[in-house]
Amino acid sequence: MAFDISELFRSGLPTPAAAPFKAFPTYNFVGGHNDAASLPVQALTAAATHVITREGATLATYGLNSGPQGYRPLRDFIASWMKDSAAMADSAEEILITSGSLQALDLVNQLLLGPDDIVIAEQATYGGALTRLSRLGIPYLGVRLDDDGIDMTHLEEMLKRQHQDGKRVKFIYTIPTVQNPTGGVMPLDRRQALLDLANRYDCVIFEDDCYADLLWSGTRPPSIRALDAEAAHSEGRANRVIYCGSFSKSVAPALRIGFIMADWPVLAQLLPLKTDAGTGALDQMVLAEFCKAHFPGHVSRLRATLKDKCDVMIEALEENFGTAAEFTAPLGGIFIWVTLPHDVDTTQLAAAAIKQGVAINPGAEWTVDGQENRNRMRLCFGHPTKEEIRDGVARLAQICHREFGLPERISNTEQI
Amino acid sequence: MAFDISELFRSGLPTPAAAPFKAFPTYNFVGGHNDAASLPVQALTAAATHVITREGATLATYGLNSGPQGYRPLRDFIASWMKDSAAMADSAEEILITSGSLQALDLVNQLLLGPDDIVIAEQATYGGALTRLSRLGIPYLGVRLDDDGIDMTHLEEMLKRQHQDGKRVKFIYTIPTVQNPTGGVMPLDRRQALLDLANRYDCVIFEDDCYADLLWSGTRPPSIRALDAEAAHSEGRANRVIYCGSFSKSVAPALRIGFIMADWPVLAQLLPLKTDAGTGALDQMVLAEFCKAHFPGHVSRLRATLKDKCDVMIEALEENFGTAAEFTAPLGGIFIWVTLPHDVDTTQLAAAAIKQGVAINPGAEWTVDGQENRNRMRLCFGHPTKEEIRDGVARLAQICHREFGLPERISNTEQI
Repeated sequence: MAFDISELFRSGLPTPAAAPFKAFPTYNFVGGHNDAASLPVQALTAAATHVITREGATLATYGLNSGPQGYRPLRDFIASWMKDSAAMADSAEEILITSGSLQALDLVNQLLLGPDDIVIAEQATYGGALTRLSRLGIPYLGVRLDDDGIDMTHLEEMLKRQHQDGKRVKFIYTIPTVQNPTGGVMPLDRRQALLDLANRYDCVIFEDDCYADLLWSGTRPPSIRALDAEAAHSEGRANRVIYCGSFSKSVAPALRIGFIMADWPVLAQLLPLKTDAGTGALDQMVLAEFCKAHFPGHVSRLRATLKDKCDVMIEALEENFGTAAEFTAPLGGIFIWVTLPHDVDTTQLAAAAIKQGVAINPGAEWTVDGQENRNRMRLCFGHPTKEEIRDGVARLAQICHREFGLPERISNTEQI
Repeated sequence: MAFDISELFRSGLPTPAAAPFKAFPTYNFVGGHNDAASLPVQALTAAATHVITREGATLATYGLNSGPQGYRPLRDFIASWMKDSAAMADSAEEILITSGSLQALDLVNQLLLGPDDIVIAEQATYGGALTRLSRLGIPYLGVRLDDDGIDMTHLEEMLKRQHQDGKRVKFIYTIPTVQNPTGGVMPLDRRQALLDLANRYDCVIFEDDCYADLLWSGTRPPSIRALDAEAAHSEGRANRVIYCGSFSKSVAPALRIGFIMADWPVLAQLLPLKTDAGTGALDQMVLAEFCKAHFPGHVSRLRATLKDKCDVMIEALEENFGTAAEFTAPLGGIFIWVTLPHDVDTTQLAAAAIKQGVAINPGAEWTVDGQENRNRMRLCFGHPTKEEIRDGVARLAQICHREFGLPERISNTEQI
């Protein structure tokens, strides 16, 4: 019998890729892709020229001259930006550059999660975080969520129950600033309440702030890690919060630059788990050079552009779905979390839509309790042009009407 | 009692980092660092300018426009280069770009290794490969090695014994071209013999060729994967070899660009294991742009430079260690594998030497049977200047003399 290498694969692997990549869908309302027209091409080119000319020879060593935590000028920039924007007191030595915030998730999971642990996540949250926990065989619970983030009463009940049952909640995973997918922001008092609960039940808080720079409405509160810093310092204890951020949404996802901010004992233990001998150097160097001169102006322009696209998507939803689509306008970011009537199963809708070139994230993949959220969907407006948003949402409404009879009346655009 | 976050870490973690990075040692004879003067700074700057200007806007999407296997022009270049230099017939669709060959090791281990598996590695081999297997709890055996690579008689005995004992050798890990640490090359007939054994005992061959571009003596044989390709094709079966390569040694380690060449069913299953959403885009883009115009000329110059440094190190070893240091001159690469008299324990030598600014890889960390190889050491000459090589080797001989009384006579340089 002919040799079949797949018989030698270990058991329990995830589903393999179906086929090599061909192209993105025409109406791409999934994924954290950015607005291509906002990509600061000229400034990045200039940054690359300067930094490679000046420091190119350091590429000859692993870790440049900065060691395994990542390019020092980038860590310096992050420390200063996070101080200004989220009241964080961490220095460059408390920062680890990662290959996107996704590697940060993998590293923190590896650091903390053992066989008897449980994680609490927001009921609706980043799908990739849930996939990771499932693959590790870690059970997770979904805490209720409103426009202001975690419902603290529900969280307290959950923690109490787990404690009574002798179960160990290792960490609470939260996206407090521009929550994914709701687009809400957890206000200061809830951040404090979250810390109090974590203190009482001895959990780590894993704060994923990777959309926070895209907040266009209201003021960005201090990060939860910043709020714990002062108490930790005065009590002579470790900060309970491990923080992660990213430049994927604020500059460019393809760069694969994220970061973790944590106390040194955490980073010291993360370093040997990061077995890739460093994150790509040119991405780090060019980004640092760019950010020093241009980051504040760039994100400010980007927020305005995204807010504009968000308005276009809201308009398109109202026009094409009418009252069938319910949502709260996000306070920032690149997505809208839409609730459709109960009869609509968005997993089925997504399957029908992709055949017509429209990609959406079905609610079941973006929530802890997928079954109860089958009538929701996440729509990203960051990457498509305004025209693609208008056309794609109209097309989605038509497909939804065809599949589910909803929305009942659809606007008079091209029938498919 | 004050909160101590390390009490929440999972058990069984590797040793944490001791302290944040300060600086490299003065005489840095460890690690795969490159010759800094050979770094093609100007050409990389020009490549960056061209490619970012032309394609910068594609940074707005994860995976650029190339999908999760990596930047297509880089995969095209690799396919063409590997065809010319190692007779490989793989197309860009059989290539996965990884964050250095280290990520390739992690991915292949994850793909293949389950609880009952065993790996066979060369008796002396890359230390990081052994560390990875230990962490996974996978037992490994060391097969004897001479200047022509694996001793096939010994390999056959091992495979037979494991088979008789009902044990499963999942793969044979080999570095056939510029072996690490011996610097030797496995000739064509042994490559064929290795394939025959792998076929008979149904193992995968994991071919790590990450130093192969630095071969300066003799002709590079076809890769083992290339040798299996024709038979696999005519027998209608999968290729038994998973190949990995790297640009760390040929261009720059800080870029973190390696690659895997394998049949699509292997890549399809590796893709969901690569959870970082892609390797750094600027590193890939700039490298591809550089390679298209400059790679052959660049590696040819680099080989000459490294051969030159190798000669300086050989001269320094002969001058300072005399007959106390035995070694075979490497056929390429960046290191020499040195055998010292039996009384010398290089783990102890390394500890004494680092205090004097000299870093070496002790034999115990670079061999399967560490205890039997405590009198060996790996010395890298890629990064230090010729002067640093001369001074560092002299200093190492003095430290060795002080600690072990060997070499008996040391040259008349500055005493420390």
